[in-house]
Amino acid sequence: MTVDKKEFLLIGPGGIGCMGAFTIDYNKKVNCSIVVRRDYEKVKENGYTIDSIDYGKIDNWKPSNVFANVEAAANSGLKFDYVAVATKNISDIVKVEELIEPIISENTVIILIQNGFGIDRPIIKKFPKNVCLSGVSHMGSHNDKGHIHHIQHDKLVISPFENPNLPTDVQVQAAKDFIDIYANDKVTCIYFESAKWYRYRKLVYNATLNTTCALTGVDTGRLDACGGLESIAVPAMKEVVAVASADGITLPEDVVNLICHGDDGDYFEPSMLVDVKKGNPIELEAILGSLLDTAEELKVPTPTLSLLYKLLQVVQFRLKEANGYVKLPEKRPISDKFYS
Amino acid sequence: MTVDKKEFLLIGPGGIGCMGAFTIDYNKKVNCSIVVRRDYEKVKENGYTIDSIDYGKIDNWKPSNVFANVEAAANSGLKFDYVAVATKNISDIVKVEELIEPIISENTVIILIQNGFGIDRPIIKKFPKNVCLSGVSHMGSHNDKGHIHHIQHDKLVISPFENPNLPTDVQVQAAKDFIDIYANDKVTCIYFESAKWYRYRKLVYNATLNTTCALTGVDTGRLDACGGLESIAVPAMKEVVAVASADGITLPEDVVNLICHGDDGDYFEPSMLVDVKKGNPIELEAILGSLLDTAEELKVPTPTLSLLYKLLQVVQFRLKEANGYVKLPEKRPISDKFYS
Repeated sequence: MTVDKKEFLLIGPGGIGCMGAFTIDYNKKVNCSIVVRRDYEKVKENGYTIDSIDYGKIDNWKPSNVFANVEAAANSGLKFDYVAVATKNISDIVKVEELIEPIISENTVIILIQNGFGIDRPIIKKFPKNVCLSGVSHMGSHNDKGHIHHIQHDKLVISPFENPNLPTDVQVQAAKDFIDIYANDKVTCIYFESAKWYRYRKLVYNATLNTTCALTGVDTGRLDACGGLESIAVPAMKEVVAVASADGITLPEDVVNLICHGDDGDYFEPSMLVDVKKGNPIELEAILGSLLDTAEELKVPTPTLSLLYKLLQVVQFRLKEANGYVKLPEKRPISDKFYS
Repeated sequence: MTVDKKEFLLIGPGGIGCMGAFTIDYNKKVNCSIVVRRDYEKVKENGYTIDSIDYGKIDNWKPSNVFANVEAAANSGLKFDYVAVATKNISDIVKVEELIEPIISENTVIILIQNGFGIDRPIIKKFPKNVCLSGVSHMGSHNDKGHIHHIQHDKLVISPFENPNLPTDVQVQAAKDFIDIYANDKVTCIYFESAKWYRYRKLVYNATLNTTCALTGVDTGRLDACGGLESIAVPAMKEVVAVASADGITLPEDVVNLICHGDDGDYFEPSMLVDVKKGNPIELEAILGSLLDTAEELKVPTPTLSLLYKLLQVVQFRLKEANGYVKLPEKRPISDKFYS
């Protein structure tokens, strides 16, 4: 008797998503498909060229199936056991729960390999009976029009997102099963119990340094050199720690210092700064908006984070207009609002 | 008996400074000289080409003297009765009081046609016996490599800066004498009693809308359209009003509303945003730093303005580095500071 292989689908083959799909395809424990929106024709024809710190040089890599969009994947007749999402999480442009709806069936395990906080909420709301896993990637990799430059080792941390509608052991087992199809002797894929803890820990960097650099246009080294690390990011970090604490998560006592020294020796440009410089919309809600919703629910004051958020909302508006998501009248309308 | 004409010198022939010097030269009540740092050879040779909403088209305008720098003006043997400064006020790069030192004599009246607040303090400290006048320009004019595009009517508001070492009547008379050499039937130059009041009034715009637009990269119309006017600039405006009030200045009750509607109908780019877009250093201390010093002295809370200031300090660092005023080591140094 042969057991049919399970089906895995990746959405969002950027640098990180593409290497994740490659690893899963390389392991051959499941069938691997991907959805490629940009560069579809090119990838369908020639696959990816990969320069990987973990695997070396690979030409013309293609998984079992390459779909042009989610609808094509849904229409393929395949039933996906795993759907991993590695797109940017920009809910004010695309809602992940709507994007993946056509390919989620009863037993699909959803894996969000994305930045941010609270990104599981809309997923679990829409798919209350599905396991949703958190994947936090520490890999450095970028996709330059189908050429993957994978420059920092793949380390993926998997945790269940704690769906209250499902028994814990089912979710833990799903996480461990996923790690089983991903881990090998070239990459690291490990289990961590609390997605919430891990994501709060990551927010101490992302909600503070990442946002401040995006707003001011400097890397983390320059932010440090001019005093902004201490005057802006550190107070913001303490606010993240306070929200986490009110939410039942105790971060390490020296977490602020650890994060401040995390890029020691590097003039590092965090992801949101890279997006702003490229003129792309930013992951503002995932990285900051949801955190502030939680802060408000828990009545934790966040003066620094709140103003950073308001300022970045303006930046997001500018980026969305530049990308055609917002249209303004040619002549500025005159409002009769009274401001006081 | 003939009376020798008085000598007027302008430093900073940008769009506004150049038109001011033109007006004074046009009136012929004093001799007019200018210091031209950029484009010196070109201006010395051919003068300026002017397209003016107030004067029409003028070719090859040159005042009596064109000096390459302040030292050349000082070495000319002329004793200046009036020195007007219309440069950007960026005290972290050039201190006006040091710049003008070689050309200030006992009776020189100094006129600062510059943005900002507290810009008189270092002048009065260094030149305690000289009258210092405030000139707030409402003209729209820019200098494109020696070609002046003067697009909004000249309206200049002159007030004494209240030098405590001199009798008030002497300062008021100096202001009125200056207006006499500037005003004519083509331009408006008026007296306003309180420089402090007028500059606080202007800060309600400059410290808030100008700074927020500079930081987020949008004009005032877009800031309004995306809600940032209300969420960021209005709270900041209220802080300016509170500082003014603590400093003895009562602004109009509806000043916030007036300022919010000041650019109605226009997608207007304020000066600091223009500087950031051009990659030029910004007038941060004049527009925000001095105000916050006063707020601190008077113990007025300014949470919004203070964070805007800290963020713009980072932007200023970036702009200064880009312009060669700051040098960083090639490899980011590792600090042993403990952040907590």
